[in-house]
Amino acid sequence: MASSSSSDFCASYGIDFPLFAFSHCRDVVAAVSNAGGFGVLGGAAYSPEQLDRELTWIDQHVNGKPYGIDIIVPAKFEGKGETLSGTDLASRIPDSYREFVDKLLADHGIEPDTKVRTGKPVLSGGNGEELLEVAMSHPITMMANALGVPPDYMIEAGRERGIPVAALVGAKEHAVKQVAAGVDLIVAQGTEAGGHCGEVSTLVVVPEVIDAIDDAVPVLAAGGIVTGRQMAAAVAMGAAGAWTGSVWLTTEEAETEPHTVTKMLAASSRDTVRSAGRTGKPSRQLRSDWTDAWAPSPGGQQPLPLPLQNMLSEPVLRRIDALADQGHEGARLLSTYFVGQGVGLMNKVKPARDVVLEFIEDYLAAAERLSNSLPD
Amino acid sequence: MASSSSSDFCASYGIDFPLFAFSHCRDVVAAVSNAGGFGVLGGAAYSPEQLDRELTWIDQHVNGKPYGIDIIVPAKFEGKGETLSGTDLASRIPDSYREFVDKLLADHGIEPDTKVRTGKPVLSGGNGEELLEVAMSHPITMMANALGVPPDYMIEAGRERGIPVAALVGAKEHAVKQVAAGVDLIVAQGTEAGGHCGEVSTLVVVPEVIDAIDDAVPVLAAGGIVTGRQMAAAVAMGAAGAWTGSVWLTTEEAETEPHTVTKMLAASSRDTVRSAGRTGKPSRQLRSDWTDAWAPSPGGQQPLPLPLQNMLSEPVLRRIDALADQGHEGARLLSTYFVGQGVGLMNKVKPARDVVLEFIEDYLAAAERLSNSLPD
Repeated sequence: MASSSSSDFCASYGIDFPLFAFSHCRDVVAAVSNAGGFGVLGGAAYSPEQLDRELTWIDQHVNGKPYGIDIIVPAKFEGKGETLSGTDLASRIPDSYREFVDKLLADHGIEPDTKVRTGKPVLSGGNGEELLEVAMSHPITMMANALGVPPDYMIEAGRERGIPVAALVGAKEHAVKQVAAGVDLIVAQGTEAGGHCGEVSTLVVVPEVIDAIDDAVPVLAAGGIVTGRQMAAAVAMGAAGAWTGSVWLTTEEAETEPHTVTKMLAASSRDTVRSAGRTGKPSRQLRSDWTDAWAPSPGGQQPLPLPLQNMLSEPVLRRIDALADQGHEGARLLSTYFVGQGVGLMNKVKPARDVVLEFIEDYLAAAERLSNSLPD
Repeated sequence: MASSSSSDFCASYGIDFPLFAFSHCRDVVAAVSNAGGFGVLGGAAYSPEQLDRELTWIDQHVNGKPYGIDIIVPAKFEGKGETLSGTDLASRIPDSYREFVDKLLADHGIEPDTKVRTGKPVLSGGNGEELLEVAMSHPITMMANALGVPPDYMIEAGRERGIPVAALVGAKEHAVKQVAAGVDLIVAQGTEAGGHCGEVSTLVVVPEVIDAIDDAVPVLAAGGIVTGRQMAAAVAMGAAGAWTGSVWLTTEEAETEPHTVTKMLAASSRDTVRSAGRTGKPSRQLRSDWTDAWAPSPGGQQPLPLPLQNMLSEPVLRRIDALADQGHEGARLLSTYFVGQGVGLMNKVKPARDVVLEFIEDYLAAAERLSNSLPD
């Protein structure tokens, strides 16, 4: 699929169709790469040993097809530059925040957990270098950094091995910085994206980024893209392809909690919210009583900075998920998970391979529709 | 420009290119219609006599080319259903709000105006029926209602005279209601739009609306569209064309305040905010000290409902504009105007006709780009 610069792009990444699929699930990554797209494993939360196991599995299942890895190394976080253990960081969470969470749980008929009070600082990027080393020992063909400019050692490692380094940005100013730092691929992500996101929409940020970096490197469009017609829209605007995440959460292969899948299938695009209540940085997720509790409002509770808010919220949200899957009503009202506004177009559980094939079909129909709008 | 359903759409509206241009400025409306697009005069703030004068001028300048009118008749507002004068409504503005505004002005070196304290309830739709009658006495070929479902008399008047009625929606649920009420054209507007807008992005809401109404009526895409490539993206997704507003604010013909034009040319897409601080309903505008003062935050000031917030803010913002144009620094920090995130791509003052021609050129290039991405 492709001619001109678009075909060059596909050729250089060894793919048939420029659909990039970010997933925490190795099965999704392999299925997408096997179907002609490009699977990207979200590896930020893994230990080096876990990551090695996941990548080994992928190697055994993609028959040499290309795939990549995504690690989070934020530019700024509480405790960065200091030598702080998880325990030191945990001591920075004020008691008033634990009391606020305990009351929120009590209001929903859930007892506080007095044993596990704090999660690991998984978004702190503390083990980023180790994860990168593990990834390098596998035949990855792209590596991405989701938060901030990639550190020098990541860019250098990519150069040495000929592995392109990608970076996600939500604003043109960030894209310009990333290109100056030496990244090979920009993912321009709109505010409709699931997870951490900026404020500018995909339809605006994609052309804005392409103009700002003056075509220096290819740009993938991200944010709200769950169909081939939306991907075609992005390519019409000059993107080299699409970077997707949410659409894989309701595939057969995904390990999404069952009650979360139910929520996502029922959700309209208006059932997500950009909230700092989960990680401390604004991230889009299903709106719930949890996100409402941290919403900016007169008299509201201000979330803690990254990674403290995440350390506070993750163990609680995991318990909430487990209770919700058991049918606990209060837990169902509280439970939330990262997903973009495209959730409004996700209405059926399908195999990941079928999602890729439907993307291609829908993309072709969109291209024909635009072509037919031209004068004869 | 067009074949198949797209050409049918253009033919039925008597246009060459399905670019709809909303503007409060008659010169822009005429220029766009004369260039092959479709100009739409925003008439909500006019008296019936003023509107008659504007439409007469347009009639004399479009040589029989089609144009339309947009009137705001909100579904819900403070005082609706009661017989309330502007004075009665004004008495519902609490003194604490006047004090808040006076302090905000004082903090920016501006004296309060003790004479003109309250604007007209222009967004209340009180004179909508009269405006419609005036519009009907001119050869308009489309009429739009920007807020809520059009009243029965508007839909019936359109049917009788064969004039399509359009409605702006920000969510699929509203589109379904509008189609059931009998509208002939849906404008699906994303959160990146200037003025009143919903929360869902254009890239998501357009396919979501098209699916939800099952192609019952044509859908125009709106929100963030200031270039032909973005319009092509919308058509690839199934839209019949684009509805635009912001891009005309920096044309030579527009009557935008000079300091506002300067702000818009300098603004990036991140310099707008969706704020209820101007009208009481969330509307996208340039971020300023005014919108910051009404931002939802712990300890922040909650805006009044429509039309009270508008009655409070309009006379103040007009004074602020006048002072800002005189170079008053505090006023420059406070001044704001409705504009979408596309402002980041608006970098030069041009004649409206040139904007249309550049749209067409950019649209054609985008269609070629998408076509070139297909396999040979």
